[in-house]
Amino acid sequence: MADLETIQKKILSFRNECDWAQFHDPKNLAEALSIEAGELLENFLWKTTEQSRNLSPDELKNVKEELADIFIFLTYLSEEYKIDLLAEVEKKIAVNESKYPVEKAKDRVASIPIYKKRALL
Amino acid sequence: MADLETIQKKILSFRNECDWAQFHDPKNLAEALSIEAGELLENFLWKTTEQSRNLSPDELKNVKEELADIFIFLTYLSEEYKIDLLAEVEKKIAVNESKYPVEKAKDRVASIPIYKKRALL
Amino acid sequence: MADLETIQKKILSFRNECDWAQFHDPKNLAEALSIEAGELLENFLWKTTEQSRNLSPDELKNVKEELADIFIFLTYLSEEYKIDLLAEVEKKIAVNESKYPVEKAKDRVASIPIYKKRALL
Amino acid sequence: MADLETIQKKILSFRNECDWAQFHDPKNLAEALSIEAGELLENFLWKTTEQSRNLSPDELKNVKEELADIFIFLTYLSEEYKIDLLAEVEKKIAVNESKYPVEKAKDRVASIPIYKKRALL
Repeated sequence: MADLETIQKKILSFRNECDWAQFHDPKNLAEALSIEAGELLENFLWKTTEQSRNLSPDELKNVKEELADIFIFLTYLSEEYKIDLLAEVEKKIAVNESKYPVEKAKDRVASIPIYKKRALL
Repeated sequence: MADLETIQKKILSFRNECDWAQFHDPKNLAEALSIEAGELLENFLWKTTEQSRNLSPDELKNVKEELADIFIFLTYLSEEYKIDLLAEVEKKIAVNESKYPVEKAKDRVASIPIYKKRALL
Repeated sequence: MADLETIQKKILSFRNECDWAQFHDPKNLAEALSIEAGELLENFLWKTTEQSRNLSPDELKNVKEELADIFIFLTYLSEEYKIDLLAEVEKKIAVNESKYPVEKAKDRVASIPIYKKRALL
Repeated sequence: MADLETIQKKILSFRNECDWAQFHDPKNLAEALSIEAGELLENFLWKTTEQSRNLSPDELKNVKEELADIFIFLTYLSEEYKIDLLAEVEKKIAVNESKYPVEKAKDRVASIPIYKKRALL
């Protein structure tokens, strides 16, 4: 299996060959990521939450591609700010763990309004 | 530096402790990812593309947290479908490279409509 | 009841007093509308489709405000292009009616992939 | 020119003929509106804010259709909650005017972080 660093280098090397960095300011990258997130969501539209667990093979294929696209834009944005994405994720996990102690968060995510925001983390 | 697998295990282990998997059907996860993408975008609202390259320290901190949140939801969705996210990204890069040969894509992303879709990849 | 034209004039007159038109290029307005749509969606996150029909009074109040905000941005964008929003909607309804004859669309929106796109119209 | 009420009746009458109300719970409608907002935004992707003021005729046509689609989903959601959309907009304008007095908001929307949230209103 390829490791994260190798994949991110591949993504950036393709971009360099196409000279696309000139268009990739963070405002446009954040727009692109948001548009891709909408395309991901489209696969679940008009479904119940139960139905969303049973995608057709075509829908599943499309979902996988959208997830990959979103990761590619995360990589571009990480490069823009010269950040180590995994290190940021680790920091965020620590924030979540201290903010939302398990004994409070357990089982409650959807039913109690005060936990709603938490659920997004 | 932590590797991807270790981080993804941490993310899922926190979720298990809170018993949140019961709320995490893919329809809701895709909604959450889309909402987070909107929150990321909010940091660039009312800015020109040039201004978007010069965030305040507070905005930058917020951007990093949103990128981490988006990665966390990519991880949940990958777990739902039991997919190896990096492997999917590798496949998508290969698709992009064959679909958009460098000699055609070079420099053109923003100016030629036909290349617009491509730029999202 | 106030009519549409009066309301749209009020929206634009408040903007003029604040001199906000200078920031309201269509790229930023479309971003703002997309961010607001994410905030609307947040009221339904972690709910089943059934639960989404039974919002708390606080959530309902918030939903109404988000719908109003989205309408305000539709008005700004209509002003930008000097278009009559209702006339555009009428045209779109006619397009939908001819593209999706009732005998084909009836009852099928969610179950048949080919109708998915249609359902968005 | 058609008035708002007539248009909204047309929108709902087409929906009734297709029996689509069964799929139109608010969670799915909010998803649809968010997806449409992403499609609107796509017309401005990779553009500078200046370029976004000069769309090609094809892009402009597409923008108008997306604005119409978003209005259609506002109508469905208003029907769901039996609200008078224009009345809600009027209330929101009053909220904005009292929250953001002109002497403070004037000219400042994009440059001062504290005014950012306000700008969305």
